[in-house]
Amino acid sequence: MPKIVDHDQRREQLAEAAWRIIRRDGLEGVSVRRVAEEAGMSLGSLRHYFVTQSELLAFSMRLVSERVTKRMKGMALSGDPRTDMETIIGELVPLDEERLAECEVWLAFTGNSLAHPKLRLLSDEVHDSLFAFFRHIVDSAIELKLAKPGIDPKLEAMRLHALVDGLVVHGVMRPELVKPDDITRIVTYHLDALMAQKKESGLETQ
Amino acid sequence: MPKIVDHDQRREQLAEAAWRIIRRDGLEGVSVRRVAEEAGMSLGSLRHYFVTQSELLAFSMRLVSERVTKRMKGMALSGDPRTDMETIIGELVPLDEERLAECEVWLAFTGNSLAHPKLRLLSDEVHDSLFAFFRHIVDSAIELKLAKPGIDPKLEAMRLHALVDGLVVHGVMRPELVKPDDITRIVTYHLDALMAQKKESGLETQ
Repeated sequence: MPKIVDHDQRREQLAEAAWRIIRRDGLEGVSVRRVAEEAGMSLGSLRHYFVTQSELLAFSMRLVSERVTKRMKGMALSGDPRTDMETIIGELVPLDEERLAECEVWLAFTGNSLAHPKLRLLSDEVHDSLFAFFRHIVDSAIELKLAKPGIDPKLEAMRLHALVDGLVVHGVMRPELVKPDDITRIVTYHLDALMAQKKESGLETQ
Repeated sequence: MPKIVDHDQRREQLAEAAWRIIRRDGLEGVSVRRVAEEAGMSLGSLRHYFVTQSELLAFSMRLVSERVTKRMKGMALSGDPRTDMETIIGELVPLDEERLAECEVWLAFTGNSLAHPKLRLLSDEVHDSLFAFFRHIVDSAIELKLAKPGIDPKLEAMRLHALVDGLVVHGVMRPELVKPDDITRIVTYHLDALMAQKKESGLETQ
């Protein structure tokens, strides 16, 4: 009987091996040869999934987005929109080892994409889908009449997006100064300032 | 008569050549040989100033901080602290070609410093001095009784720092979506929210 191979799983294993190299040696350390070694796979087997380094890098970055999206979709929602907004945003920031790994990979791509047009297209994709997500958060807060009256939705979405990406950079770069608790407190505080009511009294307004 | 050489100027010329390479080819494109070529200088002359690639990179990153600090110190202040805070923060974000170059170099260092301990020390230095700057802004706003009563100075400084670094990332990565005007508006809006009075009425509170 032929061995049954889960190709999606293999692809993810290879991308995770690429993540480890990116975190340890930087983006320039990623080559198909080194990723095959890191994943304990032959170069021939790897080439069944990825022919070029670019393909491998693109999949590695997309895997970050896919993992985040999957966790967001699988989240247990509380039913309180204010609390859920905070929990969903929490999936994007380095609050544990899994999210730290994703954030480090994102930062390596971001910092290297200026000079590398192919990486830039990927980073732009990620930026745009995140902006759409933050815009949706702000629009929902307005529709649900949770937001302060008269706020500018586009400006607030841009501000929230910049704040969260800045917290990602700081949580990755200065983890001993910008701790998971700090990040959570800052996101809560920022959302409080955006809303007509603070979180504690949020439920009463439902 | 021997030729008079301004050594500081030469060092800055070499660092600027390194900036051009970083922006065009990424941080991994920087070698002493390529910087000498880019600056139109012999490798021997370059080695008079920088022996290793690390020294050259360190100086290139420090030059970003020095240029920003110099502009801040040379700024014409309006005398209105609220307006001046905004102008000073404006020196850190990509509002023109000069600041865009500095921000791009900063982002390349940031995105590559995780895997490179020497770069990391430099990035940490920059992070810490920027945090001290934002803390000073918030503390000044409190002392001058411009800030909303009861704000948490450390949390506000961390939030402002994250917001500004996030705007730098977005202004560099997505300049067609996050334009200089947007960045200025977001900073103004954020400071307005921090203060007891909005900017327009700020002068009347003096």
